[in-house]
Amino acid sequence: MSNRQSEIGVLGLGVMGAALTLNLADQSFRIAVYNRDSGREIGTVSNFLAGNASQTNILGFTDLKDFVSNLERPRKIIVMISASAVDAVLADLLPLLDADDIILDAGNSHFKETETRQALCSKSKIEFIGCGVSGGERGARFGPSIIPGGSPIAFSAVEPYLKSIAAKDKNGSPCMSYVGKGSAGHFVKMVHNGIEYVEMQLLAELYQLLRGSWSNERISELLESWNGGELHSYLLEITSNILIKKEGDSYLLDQILDKAGNKGTGSWSSISALELGSDNSMMSAAVFARYLSSQKETRVRLNLPNREKSDSEIEIPSLKNAYDAARRLNHLQGFELIRLASNEFSWDINFSELARIWTNGCIIRSALMEEVSERFKTAPSLLEDKEYISELGDLENALSESVQDFVQHRIASPAFSSSWNYWIGLTTANGSANLIQAQRDYFGAHTYQRVDDPNGAAHHTNWEE
Amino acid sequence: MSNRQSEIGVLGLGVMGAALTLNLADQSFRIAVYNRDSGREIGTVSNFLAGNASQTNILGFTDLKDFVSNLERPRKIIVMISASAVDAVLADLLPLLDADDIILDAGNSHFKETETRQALCSKSKIEFIGCGVSGGERGARFGPSIIPGGSPIAFSAVEPYLKSIAAKDKNGSPCMSYVGKGSAGHFVKMVHNGIEYVEMQLLAELYQLLRGSWSNERISELLESWNGGELHSYLLEITSNILIKKEGDSYLLDQILDKAGNKGTGSWSSISALELGSDNSMMSAAVFARYLSSQKETRVRLNLPNREKSDSEIEIPSLKNAYDAARRLNHLQGFELIRLASNEFSWDINFSELARIWTNGCIIRSALMEEVSERFKTAPSLLEDKEYISELGDLENALSESVQDFVQHRIASPAFSSSWNYWIGLTTANGSANLIQAQRDYFGAHTYQRVDDPNGAAHHTNWEE
Repeated sequence: MSNRQSEIGVLGLGVMGAALTLNLADQSFRIAVYNRDSGREIGTVSNFLAGNASQTNILGFTDLKDFVSNLERPRKIIVMISASAVDAVLADLLPLLDADDIILDAGNSHFKETETRQALCSKSKIEFIGCGVSGGERGARFGPSIIPGGSPIAFSAVEPYLKSIAAKDKNGSPCMSYVGKGSAGHFVKMVHNGIEYVEMQLLAELYQLLRGSWSNERISELLESWNGGELHSYLLEITSNILIKKEGDSYLLDQILDKAGNKGTGSWSSISALELGSDNSMMSAAVFARYLSSQKETRVRLNLPNREKSDSEIEIPSLKNAYDAARRLNHLQGFELIRLASNEFSWDINFSELARIWTNGCIIRSALMEEVSERFKTAPSLLEDKEYISELGDLENALSESVQDFVQHRIASPAFSSSWNYWIGLTTANGSANLIQAQRDYFGAHTYQRVDDPNGAAHHTNWEE
Repeated sequence: MSNRQSEIGVLGLGVMGAALTLNLADQSFRIAVYNRDSGREIGTVSNFLAGNASQTNILGFTDLKDFVSNLERPRKIIVMISASAVDAVLADLLPLLDADDIILDAGNSHFKETETRQALCSKSKIEFIGCGVSGGERGARFGPSIIPGGSPIAFSAVEPYLKSIAAKDKNGSPCMSYVGKGSAGHFVKMVHNGIEYVEMQLLAELYQLLRGSWSNERISELLESWNGGELHSYLLEITSNILIKKEGDSYLLDQILDKAGNKGTGSWSSISALELGSDNSMMSAAVFARYLSSQKETRVRLNLPNREKSDSEIEIPSLKNAYDAARRLNHLQGFELIRLASNEFSWDINFSELARIWTNGCIIRSALMEEVSERFKTAPSLLEDKEYISELGDLENALSESVQDFVQHRIASPAFSSSWNYWIGLTTANGSANLIQAQRDYFGAHTYQRVDDPNGAAHHTNWEE
């Protein structure tokens, strides 16, 4: 091991940390890596170095103090560990650092914890960047989408590294951009994952509708044909591949248990929407669908037959447009949630730029994301983009037909249904909340506003008089 | 003011505190009441005493120390103030109290805060009871449903007071029962409010569907006829009244702005479900519907015409059964959430008894709640009550028809739709989460379980090979 100093450190050599390290190494940076060397992680560093012996610009450490000492000041340390371990690592790391050193948490930490950690670090004048990294292992290795948030000065110091390892958009610009102060990076990455949950759920619902009468091959071909056009997305593409992946003579997909796991970011997104007051019905529907999937034993016990119909009864052109509409509504809800948070926390997020860095490298990259990035160049909100709304209006009939198709076939469609109900609610000037306000005033004297009182004063009625 | 000691104190003379005090006074208890005497609350105590001069068993205080000194030991203080003020009041109150004194927080505090406060109080050996009180002002005055949780010993000390002021069930037993240790009382009251949100939203959706072609009078008559049978509920009854409440020649309901407020308990319920992993899609749908209602300006701007059809196209018998089904699914989700929390926090809640104390006094009292209380006498969960499930199966076609009616009429039905999708998901042995697991394994190596591996081992595939 040479005695040269390293310019950047990576703490944590799990799947994502190892991939990021190799990505950095490809750019010829001088890198120090650290992983603890105990329990199930014994040998992690030596195995990693042995497996990548050609990367001579990586130094390995199993002693945290040595790792820190090897870094040029101000130190730049990318922490890539599970969110639950961050506090323990910080406790060990902080005493070894100096003022102006920079910790970049690249894991899926909750944004509120990121704020707590930023406050803790600032006591020692240490910078803490909460940074979203999307793209899975392959993205981390060959170009992820990177969403850092925190102090702009600290960001400048890590910018060259992040820029060089990020994916490139269609114009060759890196899919990496400073998103805002504080915990903006982790918040926005959380919502990215929430959007991803819905994109996955919509495809799962389509699959469930079609599988009753269609072969995996035929569904795959349909999705592949959609993927060639404006519905193109990474998730659509891999779903088409998944459907026809064989294991011997049978489809692998048919051997997979229908109990979905989750790592928390989907439910965090839904919780944030509930806290901020944003209608985010599609994400929570997708999260709840995963929860329900885990009740396998109950579902088997209560099983009732689906209504299998001939495939001619499923309107495929409508289904395609319904899928388009539901995805547009998902992106609308997701970006509205970010917009609300940006206002609430004064992040001043550039939504066009945010969408742009999601056009490549990340799991939700798609043709629609390209469009959204363009639209945000002029519209402050998708709700105020007339063409986006008008497009949804054009797709409405298809969405209506498909939602009814799902019901008639007895296929659960929580995400499609939520998208429909959101759209209808959004385009209904006179809703039924007047009744809810009347009920609240009746039993709880919560008061109501009147349509004929533009000042919005609180009125109360003694309803039983 | 006499020098006699009081046996129980009420802190806070807002609408609910005043009503509870008069209820206690009716039972001839010796009561001390306290309210601060500053700002907008100046004169609150003297006005209250002057307005209820015949109640000679109430002593009033504006000095907290005098109030505390007037109470017999161990002191029993019912705190009935807004949740946001509880910590400040505790800070003032705790130094004045002695070991074994009891504070009962009867407001809608978040259950997690109740736990924090219990821990704080226990340092001074003071008991803190988190107590749900439902029924609005009228309930508080003449008999609310009361749901206390905390230490069983502290509960015994306040039991006689709570028992005597509670509503009575059909057999004359008080609608008050110790629900469990810790924050169980406030948790369960929170879910009560979540169930209430959905009950209100279902009625709002019915109203919206019918109002296009029916008069308020006709809708009211329909609901009144339903209320005479097994669909009987307090909320159905008041909705029928609300519809025909006149203001001069016009309906008051038509003058109320359709922007629904919320006090937080609905979103707290939804958040708890997301945290605990319980499919609680109907509550979050109801909360999100309120959020969307508040976007009035956007809804007016984006308004599109409804599809008004003649009333003959709405299948009223189906609608009645659909409403029955949706309410049953709402109660199923609500009690499942409580069951999950009871397991998680070891509360050992008696669900039959809990449903019983909700059969009168509270906002969600109904014939269905009576049925649920009976069912929980033998079934550990509504999911395991064969008749309850079988009844839902019988109602399924009606729910399917009505959900399609909503879609065809272009009326948003987030709560009805969620109930349908929950039911279908629950009764589908083989769902589509296998695809979601495949996607997660494809892009993130998250692994999956296999149907042919009963040990549930984690499998991973290199999907692109």
